[in-house]
Amino acid sequence: MNVDTSVWPPRYDPTYRPDPTADFWFPELECLQPGARDALILDKLRRQVAWAWERSPFYRRKWDAAGVSPATLQSLEDLAKFPVVQKAELRLSQAAAPPYGEYLCIDPGEVVRIHGTSGTTGRPTVFGLGSEDWGRIGEAHARILWAAGIRPDDRVLICSFFSLYLGSWGALRGVERLGATAFPFGAGVPGQTLMAVEWARELKPTAFYGTPSYALHFAETSRREGIDPRTFGLRTLFFSGEPGAGIPATKRLIEETFGGRCVDMGSMAEMTPWMTNAECRHRTGMHLWQDLVYTQVCAPETFAPLPFGAEGTPVYT
Amino acid sequence: MNVDTSVWPPRYDPTYRPDPTADFWFPELECLQPGARDALILDKLRRQVAWAWERSPFYRRKWDAAGVSPATLQSLEDLAKFPVVQKAELRLSQAAAPPYGEYLCIDPGEVVRIHGTSGTTGRPTVFGLGSEDWGRIGEAHARILWAAGIRPDDRVLICSFFSLYLGSWGALRGVERLGATAFPFGAGVPGQTLMAVEWARELKPTAFYGTPSYALHFAETSRREGIDPRTFGLRTLFFSGEPGAGIPATKRLIEETFGGRCVDMGSMAEMTPWMTNAECRHRTGMHLWQDLVYTQVCAPETFAPLPFGAEGTPVYT
Repeated sequence: MNVDTSVWPPRYDPTYRPDPTADFWFPELECLQPGARDALILDKLRRQVAWAWERSPFYRRKWDAAGVSPATLQSLEDLAKFPVVQKAELRLSQAAAPPYGEYLCIDPGEVVRIHGTSGTTGRPTVFGLGSEDWGRIGEAHARILWAAGIRPDDRVLICSFFSLYLGSWGALRGVERLGATAFPFGAGVPGQTLMAVEWARELKPTAFYGTPSYALHFAETSRREGIDPRTFGLRTLFFSGEPGAGIPATKRLIEETFGGRCVDMGSMAEMTPWMTNAECRHRTGMHLWQDLVYTQVCAPETFAPLPFGAEGTPVYT
Repeated sequence: MNVDTSVWPPRYDPTYRPDPTADFWFPELECLQPGARDALILDKLRRQVAWAWERSPFYRRKWDAAGVSPATLQSLEDLAKFPVVQKAELRLSQAAAPPYGEYLCIDPGEVVRIHGTSGTTGRPTVFGLGSEDWGRIGEAHARILWAAGIRPDDRVLICSFFSLYLGSWGALRGVERLGATAFPFGAGVPGQTLMAVEWARELKPTAFYGTPSYALHFAETSRREGIDPRTFGLRTLFFSGEPGAGIPATKRLIEETFGGRCVDMGSMAEMTPWMTNAECRHRTGMHLWQDLVYTQVCAPETFAPLPFGAEGTPVYT
């Protein structure tokens, strides 16, 4: 394959797909040595910061006030000099400059998709996505789903609400990019779970996406219909939107209920392509896909990066 | 633009988009003289019949029994010699060879998306779509939405259930292909209409897709919130899934309620790319997009094609 590494991120044939027996989607990125990986991450971050500095009044003002600029970022350590953005600021910016806020880095006319949060803890947040974002979302999700063990011969039942919530759309895009069969069934409509169970019995999906609590509700509904959830033959169940799949007892319960592996993933929708913390099929804990979204554990008060092994709050870049 | 007419359908640059002031999406096809159009339709049908004859045991058996084969189809009139397929037969075929039935013309492993009907009038029907189908669906919908007056500067609120039902997915694909902004909000979840109204107030969509009855429910919900539906500024409301938008009184009510034009479209999901009967922005009745799906009005008993102006049952090819 012809990979153009003179641009970043590297561009490759958009129909690229590894051999089904391969462990990695794109080993050239996933198996980099730490030093080379950090160099790539720094290079990407420098471009990102310059891009936002040029295009976003929000970031320029914020960085100016903190005395930093694109020139400040000479090493990954310099990232700590940049102030952390909190969700409340994004909300304020959207209230002041609706609908996208002053942090949008494309022309509003270039927004091809609008999504959002439901505003459970405050003002709903709007996400304006450009057409290139969807390509990135598909690449990121394909890579992460590949690591979770999804392959082109999988049939993936997506039992998660298709509306504002981005998780279901990302799973769909990733399944499409990976070449598996997507069955975007959705969730949330009265009576729909019983229908999903009937369709699952008929279509025998091999993978399931949703929230952990919904998977358990789905299993209960199956049992009420006299169907043992293990008979669906689900090999992989992958989850985001809720923390349950990472809790050992819940993971065990899901695996025993369905007889398939339970893979946890997540991060936050504000950080497109957002599915960036994810387990692989070995389920020994979260991988941070650092070349997609750079994740650090920081002190909750000062946001200073903490050494490996410490407890703190995640900061996504 | 470089249009390759040596293949059928003609392939063009997949990023092609007409000038926003243009009346037609692709005048080379939409403005053909009747004779040239019929020649194109015949050419497409002959390829389609040969394709199905080679790949589908269902069609081969059915045609064999009726004494026809691809060689029979020498003119559009010969089409009447081919037996009409009714929905009950598709259901039987799916029951006998689940899930897709013996009329699937691609390898089951090439199915990239599964959709279906809910089975209101019988066994649910499964639709297995290949990756090239999505491209065709996008092209067809972009062309029809362009005729309805949707342009790249539109923001389209899609208020229709994203699940089995294909209508919402086709509208989304068409909006994306056309270059407008899609806001796929969905419908059917308790409390969702009120949220849709609040988002519409914030985001000021210029177009709406859903069912006519849902649009009127949306308007009622707005009024209950003290919002005149005319203040959303919707220029175009387009509909499928229900016949209401073609009924003069309902059309008038929707246009008076929202102050935008009400455009009806439809056909049947079995006929991918399925949005093939559609009004244009002048709303003087349905156009049959005959080069997409060839539609005839036939006698309800014999399925013999009827002369222009007669009443009968539609037969889609």
